[in-house]
Amino acid sequence: MIAPLLSHIQKYVPLTHEEQEVIAQYVQCLTVKNKQYLFTEGAPCSAQYFVIEGCLRMYFIKENGVEQIIQFGIDNWWISDYTSLTLNKPSQFYLQAVQPSKLFVLKKDKQEALFEHVPKLESYFRRIYQRAYAAAQTRQIYFSDLSGEEKYHHFATRFPDFIQRIPQYMLASYLGFTPEFLSKIRAKK
Amino acid sequence: MIAPLLSHIQKYVPLTHEEQEVIAQYVQCLTVKNKQYLFTEGAPCSAQYFVIEGCLRMYFIKENGVEQIIQFGIDNWWISDYTSLTLNKPSQFYLQAVQPSKLFVLKKDKQEALFEHVPKLESYFRRIYQRAYAAAQTRQIYFSDLSGEEKYHHFATRFPDFIQRIPQYMLASYLGFTPEFLSKIRAKK
Repeated sequence: MIAPLLSHIQKYVPLTHEEQEVIAQYVQCLTVKNKQYLFTEGAPCSAQYFVIEGCLRMYFIKENGVEQIIQFGIDNWWISDYTSLTLNKPSQFYLQAVQPSKLFVLKKDKQEALFEHVPKLESYFRRIYQRAYAAAQTRQIYFSDLSGEEKYHHFATRFPDFIQRIPQYMLASYLGFTPEFLSKIRAKK
Repeated sequence: MIAPLLSHIQKYVPLTHEEQEVIAQYVQCLTVKNKQYLFTEGAPCSAQYFVIEGCLRMYFIKENGVEQIIQFGIDNWWISDYTSLTLNKPSQFYLQAVQPSKLFVLKKDKQEALFEHVPKLESYFRRIYQRAYAAAQTRQIYFSDLSGEEKYHHFATRFPDFIQRIPQYMLASYLGFTPEFLSKIRAKK
């Protein structure tokens, strides 16, 4: 069951058999139903989540009441509200399953002890966060320079399977336009 | 000269005297003039930069020819194009000094060797990137939910000294509106 996580870690750092066993003791496996929440706005987020299968969405509710998705979590991705997690502040986001999903949970209060036992995980997470931050920088180009239609085509080209898996209104929310506008773009195609 | 960097690292991880000397051998001090570039679009970015004093801006040029600033680098911040750095791809950004600035440079080709000599720097950079990624997540709320005027006030409240230091057209570019609009907001106040 823990194989996908261990094999993801070993893409970045090699693990001994012992280290693999320690990691297995520190993370929990969690199965969530569609629509189940991992955390909600106002409560502190106390863990990070590695998606084995399924799909999560992280969103906030805008002043006008509209949900704005800022991120999806799919297979082999870590997802969390890192401001809440790092600074112990109430989250400004919701993290919710949008499909039945299987996850690994690394709780904040276990993380430091795990890193002490397996120091090379510092290197693994350093690389994970470096890539996540890199993606966030690049996303700023797409989200401030592309038209709605260009954003859709960019996303569809990079993640062709993924856009088949999620409800269209969620894809529209992530791309920052209405479901009606998305239908128009797709109809054109 | 290296004291500000060492003291920043030691906010996160303690360093022995030996480790401090190793770090001093692996990073270079660099003084840049106002308007000098650290890297430009199309060329790979091969280092990350720690600002001791001064100010840098990272920007890209939009399809319509307008410069869009995505980030400032001020005292005690690391700044780089992490997609270009991580994946050896040509940068999509420009990194330029907007004041005479003093920096430390950690070159990509020295980074792995430095981490081998001082493994606790993995933990330091893990924390640095975790915080940078956290800030990028939170920024998505401000940039997709606040009006131009609200964004200005939010930024002015968080960084009161900083907005006095940079030219107004740059602040406008970062916040995503025109210098004229910024003058109007300030005049109101």
